[in-house]
Amino acid sequence: MAHTSIILRVELNHEQVTFGDVAAVISQAGGDITSIDVIRPGKDSSVRDITVDVTEAAESQVVEALKERTGIKLINVSDRTFLVHLGGKIGVQPSMPIKNRDDLSRVYTPGVARVCTAIHENPRKAYSLTIKRNTVAVVTDGTAVLGLGDIGPHAAAPVMEGKAMLFKQLAGVDAFPICLDTKDTEEIIRTVKAISPIFGGINLEDIGSPRCFEIETRLSEELDIPVFHDDQHGTAVVVVAGLLNALKVVGKRIETVRIVVNGIGAAGVSICKMLLAAGVTRLVPVDRDGAIVNGGTYPYPMWQWLAEQPQVEGVSGSLKEVLPGADVFIGVSRGGLLNAEDLQTMAPDRIVFAMANPKPEVDPEQALPHVRVLGTGRSDYPNQINNVLCFPGIFRGALDCRARRINEPMKLAAARAIASVVTEKELNEQYIIPSIFNEQVVTKVRHAVIEAAILTGVARRIPPDFR
Amino acid sequence: MAHTSIILRVELNHEQVTFGDVAAVISQAGGDITSIDVIRPGKDSSVRDITVDVTEAAESQVVEALKERTGIKLINVSDRTFLVHLGGKIGVQPSMPIKNRDDLSRVYTPGVARVCTAIHENPRKAYSLTIKRNTVAVVTDGTAVLGLGDIGPHAAAPVMEGKAMLFKQLAGVDAFPICLDTKDTEEIIRTVKAISPIFGGINLEDIGSPRCFEIETRLSEELDIPVFHDDQHGTAVVVVAGLLNALKVVGKRIETVRIVVNGIGAAGVSICKMLLAAGVTRLVPVDRDGAIVNGGTYPYPMWQWLAEQPQVEGVSGSLKEVLPGADVFIGVSRGGLLNAEDLQTMAPDRIVFAMANPKPEVDPEQALPHVRVLGTGRSDYPNQINNVLCFPGIFRGALDCRARRINEPMKLAAARAIASVVTEKELNEQYIIPSIFNEQVVTKVRHAVIEAAILTGVARRIPPDFR
Repeated sequence: MAHTSIILRVELNHEQVTFGDVAAVISQAGGDITSIDVIRPGKDSSVRDITVDVTEAAESQVVEALKERTGIKLINVSDRTFLVHLGGKIGVQPSMPIKNRDDLSRVYTPGVARVCTAIHENPRKAYSLTIKRNTVAVVTDGTAVLGLGDIGPHAAAPVMEGKAMLFKQLAGVDAFPICLDTKDTEEIIRTVKAISPIFGGINLEDIGSPRCFEIETRLSEELDIPVFHDDQHGTAVVVVAGLLNALKVVGKRIETVRIVVNGIGAAGVSICKMLLAAGVTRLVPVDRDGAIVNGGTYPYPMWQWLAEQPQVEGVSGSLKEVLPGADVFIGVSRGGLLNAEDLQTMAPDRIVFAMANPKPEVDPEQALPHVRVLGTGRSDYPNQINNVLCFPGIFRGALDCRARRINEPMKLAAARAIASVVTEKELNEQYIIPSIFNEQVVTKVRHAVIEAAILTGVARRIPPDFR
Repeated sequence: MAHTSIILRVELNHEQVTFGDVAAVISQAGGDITSIDVIRPGKDSSVRDITVDVTEAAESQVVEALKERTGIKLINVSDRTFLVHLGGKIGVQPSMPIKNRDDLSRVYTPGVARVCTAIHENPRKAYSLTIKRNTVAVVTDGTAVLGLGDIGPHAAAPVMEGKAMLFKQLAGVDAFPICLDTKDTEEIIRTVKAISPIFGGINLEDIGSPRCFEIETRLSEELDIPVFHDDQHGTAVVVVAGLLNALKVVGKRIETVRIVVNGIGAAGVSICKMLLAAGVTRLVPVDRDGAIVNGGTYPYPMWQWLAEQPQVEGVSGSLKEVLPGADVFIGVSRGGLLNAEDLQTMAPDRIVFAMANPKPEVDPEQALPHVRVLGTGRSDYPNQINNVLCFPGIFRGALDCRARRINEPMKLAAARAIASVVTEKELNEQYIIPSIFNEQVVTKVRHAVIEAAILTGVARRIPPDFR
């Protein structure tokens, strides 16, 4: 049941009600008071803000109950989720105050001219003398936002701002939202290239498929800073991290398991590629028309590429037809495709990652009795596959070594680093993935990503702790 | 003489020198010690950072003198201007920490989805639920940066970051630098339009003339947020502010004075337009080929427009030929064009604003004995015409009333507000313009700009203090 917090501003007539009465009304209607602030005290009446935790179903009951009670005037109902968004969630902060004319002449004219000249003479100095070395653009066209679809650049902004908050809090990265008022592939590529000089990296976000492939590929080739489409690779990195640990739990090896991946869109393609890079030898990619088979011919370049990989099986069929005997099911598709009986056709000690949002490919309650390890995209079950585990650390690492790009070895290194945060001792069916609040995650991902960048020749700087 | 601060990191061998010796060496070479930090204390030797104020000429003398002295090892010389730029001058700061899963579910998935949906259903909510209402893009193509010219987008970044610092400190506006890797007019227009959804305003900066006119005009027409080219209008607003006060000092009226404006580029055009809006009836615009005259034919649309204004005089000639009899000279051109004799041909009680940078149109020392009021772009003379007086307050006002654009009445209101900060009592030849650190400036400019926006129908919101 979805919970929410609401803030009720009420005026109490002290002759008619006490605060105890108000509290009773709220609890009887299903609300749980979590805090009280007195806004205006007074002898005859007072105004208070009461924060109440309620299920979404009970919210209107609480509001109605208060309205009906004599002596209580309900002034306003604010939803805490909306309250934290008021005025936006990020700001731009100067690194120092400009206290006097001396300060001004250093950070601005005339002193700044010498700094500009130094960069003009040696453009690499942009990395030391501007925000470039720590700044990432979070770029969206607003066409594939969460489960909401094409809601446009303005409505996408709250997600991008949230992402910027996470970038800063978890990894110290300064991220700024760029919400594009265009859906044209070429226009998006041109725009991102045009604004790239101030940025040290580009995080593409919630851009629809198949446009996202071309945009990421082209930008990676045409810019000399890392470009990372989080919906593809962030998800893939965390799936592989979870899979590595789940395989340990069930005692199987990645080289021998048979894996069905359902949903070959942005995330699915990246997951398949990473699985192959990680050593998988028996892969069955499935989309709406059934399995993509070795030797087949397909309309999308990515599907065609998969059909040419020797590790991809040659047996065609629908999802339910190819699932029997699989050790692992990975779903990035849509809710309610499978039931308990379907899962029982899989090999023993089965691993199921059902990540469709908000409704997984198989109902978790139905699935749990029939699988060894279950992962979902949801926070109300164990093993949440959450790409917040990946993007802060992978960009921290890429920025610190000034990586030209984020390549497959760096992504695999990130996945292995995330998996390594869960120790042998801690590892079990309910705990294959660390919490996003685990402080080791960013540190370990950063370290692994830099190491991989150095080894594959894309690092342009060796950070001091690697010298 | 230009001063700078340097930080000298020195290691002292205590058997051979005392800190007193070091101090003596530095002062004898022309340096002034302003602070000392002990980096590594020790019995036999110690390392200290010594901050020294020096003229640029004396800098190398100080360094050489220290190198020659036995017992002093000069480890490093850092320039304070460069030091404050290390890592850039701004950062992105979250509005609140994400302390737990509850916080996360409000600022990011799944809670954020409801906020996105609310904006999708009513796009105006972007102003309350995202950073749009307080965020401005500082956009440059790096082609006309300070006096440095076309140094490119990377080298322009330190100026844009400095501007973002001033926006925040002086007016609480969140500004983010957008440094464009293109000089193409259409491409710049397209790019700014594409990235506009997250921004509440666009500050164009250091974009070359005549490209800047087309870019600003088109963006103003095609976007519904204010677009302001600071190099044009910021300068013009502050010039007009200074002129209003200077005219009070000399006891002349704007409707009757004869004004020569030299340099009809980005700033000059805007100055001429504002002067006409302010009631000037005798205007002489001059460029390299001489006066632009009423009825003439000119290659640039802006010059042609000026030639069609009845207040523009019809007498042709070079700057020196049209200057005699003028009450006011305003220069936004280049250094060393005029001398004391030229100024003496002007009417009595002359006002001269010589703003070419770093060398004014006339040497201030030569000019001072021959004028009543002198203004320059420099901070080492009284009456600095500094556009830092304008942009923070004008955007604060435009954002607070969600102005569709920044029109001529709003600019004139800003100029009058800046002038009004200097009281009748304070006003004199040396003090016609307030300091940028005067806290009344932004408050008064904001207020005047909102009032003008409401009166001219471009305000889309009436701020609470105007209701």
